[in-house]
Amino acid sequence: MKFKIQKKISTTRPRVDYSILKDTVAQIFEDITNNGDIAIQKYNRLFDGFNGTQLKVTATELQEATAQVEPDLKKALKKAQKNIAKFHKAQIQDTPQKIKIEKGLTCWQETRPIEKIGIYIPGGSAPLFSSVLMLGVPAKIAGCSEIVLCTPPDKNGKIAPEILYTAQLTGITNIYKTGGIQAIAAMSLGTESIPKVYKIFGPGNQYVTAAKQFALQKGTAIDLPAGPSELMVVADKSAKPEYVAADLLSQAEHGEDSQVVCLSPDKNFLKQVIVHINKQVKALDRQKIIKKSLQNAQFVNIKNTAKILQAINDYAPEHLILSTRFNSYLLRGLSNAGSVFIGNYAPESAGDYASGTNHTLPTNGFAKSYSGVNMESFVKHISFQKISKKGLKNIAETVETMASYEGLTAHQNAVEIRLKSK
Amino acid sequence: MKFKIQKKISTTRPRVDYSILKDTVAQIFEDITNNGDIAIQKYNRLFDGFNGTQLKVTATELQEATAQVEPDLKKALKKAQKNIAKFHKAQIQDTPQKIKIEKGLTCWQETRPIEKIGIYIPGGSAPLFSSVLMLGVPAKIAGCSEIVLCTPPDKNGKIAPEILYTAQLTGITNIYKTGGIQAIAAMSLGTESIPKVYKIFGPGNQYVTAAKQFALQKGTAIDLPAGPSELMVVADKSAKPEYVAADLLSQAEHGEDSQVVCLSPDKNFLKQVIVHINKQVKALDRQKIIKKSLQNAQFVNIKNTAKILQAINDYAPEHLILSTRFNSYLLRGLSNAGSVFIGNYAPESAGDYASGTNHTLPTNGFAKSYSGVNMESFVKHISFQKISKKGLKNIAETVETMASYEGLTAHQNAVEIRLKSK
Repeated sequence: MKFKIQKKISTTRPRVDYSILKDTVAQIFEDITNNGDIAIQKYNRLFDGFNGTQLKVTATELQEATAQVEPDLKKALKKAQKNIAKFHKAQIQDTPQKIKIEKGLTCWQETRPIEKIGIYIPGGSAPLFSSVLMLGVPAKIAGCSEIVLCTPPDKNGKIAPEILYTAQLTGITNIYKTGGIQAIAAMSLGTESIPKVYKIFGPGNQYVTAAKQFALQKGTAIDLPAGPSELMVVADKSAKPEYVAADLLSQAEHGEDSQVVCLSPDKNFLKQVIVHINKQVKALDRQKIIKKSLQNAQFVNIKNTAKILQAINDYAPEHLILSTRFNSYLLRGLSNAGSVFIGNYAPESAGDYASGTNHTLPTNGFAKSYSGVNMESFVKHISFQKISKKGLKNIAETVETMASYEGLTAHQNAVEIRLKSK
Repeated sequence: MKFKIQKKISTTRPRVDYSILKDTVAQIFEDITNNGDIAIQKYNRLFDGFNGTQLKVTATELQEATAQVEPDLKKALKKAQKNIAKFHKAQIQDTPQKIKIEKGLTCWQETRPIEKIGIYIPGGSAPLFSSVLMLGVPAKIAGCSEIVLCTPPDKNGKIAPEILYTAQLTGITNIYKTGGIQAIAAMSLGTESIPKVYKIFGPGNQYVTAAKQFALQKGTAIDLPAGPSELMVVADKSAKPEYVAADLLSQAEHGEDSQVVCLSPDKNFLKQVIVHINKQVKALDRQKIIKKSLQNAQFVNIKNTAKILQAINDYAPEHLILSTRFNSYLLRGLSNAGSVFIGNYAPESAGDYASGTNHTLPTNGFAKSYSGVNMESFVKHISFQKISKKGLKNIAETVETMASYEGLTAHQNAVEIRLKSK
């Protein structure tokens, strides 16, 4: 493949407009509101060719899955689980500090898990069991009391044993056989057999994304706005072009709409990366996807390090690999990125599976305003205030003056009535 | 007014469907995309009768506002600012801990402010300057580098001096004269004079809410899904019915769609609260609004404390006042609420203005999945991983095994190529 070396980065992502799916989504949500499980079964037949009426995965199916998963994968999953748990547990904050605002007036925040959450895991040929870990592990640590997992069955009603095993490993056994729009609708609305949840997590195709957007509008929280996955590698001569090529290829195999950007102060280095891409791609399984996705690749030659930093922050990459002699300069000035990989031996693959960081990250420039999934995603903070008569006296004048200028006399009254009584 | 005393709480809120405004919103967004400031001026003329072309508030206007605000309000605002700053500063976490996952593999999170944020403040007869403090103070503490404030002018191009003064007090001087849908569109898209931001905060009517929903779909983050404000008071005989009545009335005056719920194990107590409501309402300015909003009031008599707790968590109130002998039981089991006021001397008014907690809170049951605005709302967390060759070796088998079972050979390759080279 041939690539042009650009002088400037383009921050434009492919525009994905889900509004064309809106009517379909609305219709399926309405059908499930009215007909519950019957409607789910209908869409299971229609979209996945599954005729069964039993939506919940049984204990027997869970046991069978455990028996079917190979020992090497079991071992890998347990190690990844351990690392993910270690990283996420460390994010838990200390017991909330109570703040004495005035004499008699104490305020504080407390953290509570979101009680009911839903996890969506896509089906298909390659089961994304790694996402089960990335969502299930922190949800369990947070203490979410009800965790529901939906994933589409094949036409025989089977779910990939890797998914069922990984779910059990994280302690999830409420698993339902349904996918796509109908799965999101089921978790958002609740049916006879599938519980309604307060927040839905997980990756998915355009239908899932459109359904999550719709669910959000109707009152169910979602993890992140979705978009195609992306990687930016910033590398200079201190990096190895063959490693950089391998990283760009690993991102490219995620999907045809994946974005890869390689930024270097050294034009020759970029040329070498391109040579290695063409060499390495031949040995890879998903060449068709990779070649399609590399059509959107950007190779950008920017000499000035300040301008490189600006390009990173303007693009706000989901994944960012830094492999330069000026890494510490870039890290100091970095403002917008999802997950950052530092050094020659930090491939994105590490974070996708097992380094411990989460792989559910903001794409599409959303790193400017969103974090990736972390412990915060599974909890909420409640604020508390304890006020004595003395405490209320201390802020009474302030509250009453402000309420009066905002024209809210009942707000004033609620203070006055407390202070004028004996 | 007469009220029925119920045996059960209803968690249903009035359904507000903003989709009827969708076409209007889409049209205004498109017009502003194409015509920028010219379109803003057009909608300013149309909706606010303001004919001017100067959108940015000038330094002279800011000075004049400062001169016009009364000393008692200035004093109150400064005290409220101090308390809000104290509470929000205490939320800042310590320097991130670096987690050694394996030898040669370290992961951590760092917090960065969202660089560009927008604050919307509604206009009208009673200027909501308190929201300027609630959003501006934490944004400044978080270190957001660009803060834009939009608020509608009157037909002479004037903005309430209280808003301009409060904005300056918090350090905000990028203030633009535009309101409603066009203000949200301007901050979401950017125009010649109004900067594009990454996240929009602030209250507003149905048009503002619909525009914020639209902006969210188009890629601008927003603070919270909106809904009518609400208060639940749980009180027993240890509370004073006249205080509870005053609190319910203060919530009711917020707007005709406000929700108030009073829950007590004691039916007689509820009757007394109703008597005091009818007594106190006569002296209040906003009687018309209050009477309308009290039509949705619920007075609920539940004797069993466990069932009371269940009712609180099912309803998930935005504001919750606890004034009972079993407060500590309720606090232990509390899962869903926005902001909690504890004791006989903790009116909602305190938190609305000056106790230090934020008044931008989840309504409509969203307390089940969302926090109110807090320091987290103005930042995002980036994850980092630093991996040495040794570190990569330690997780190589795990990553490669998982990648292989997910069918992602390029992911395997990115690890292998690093380890096989010398």
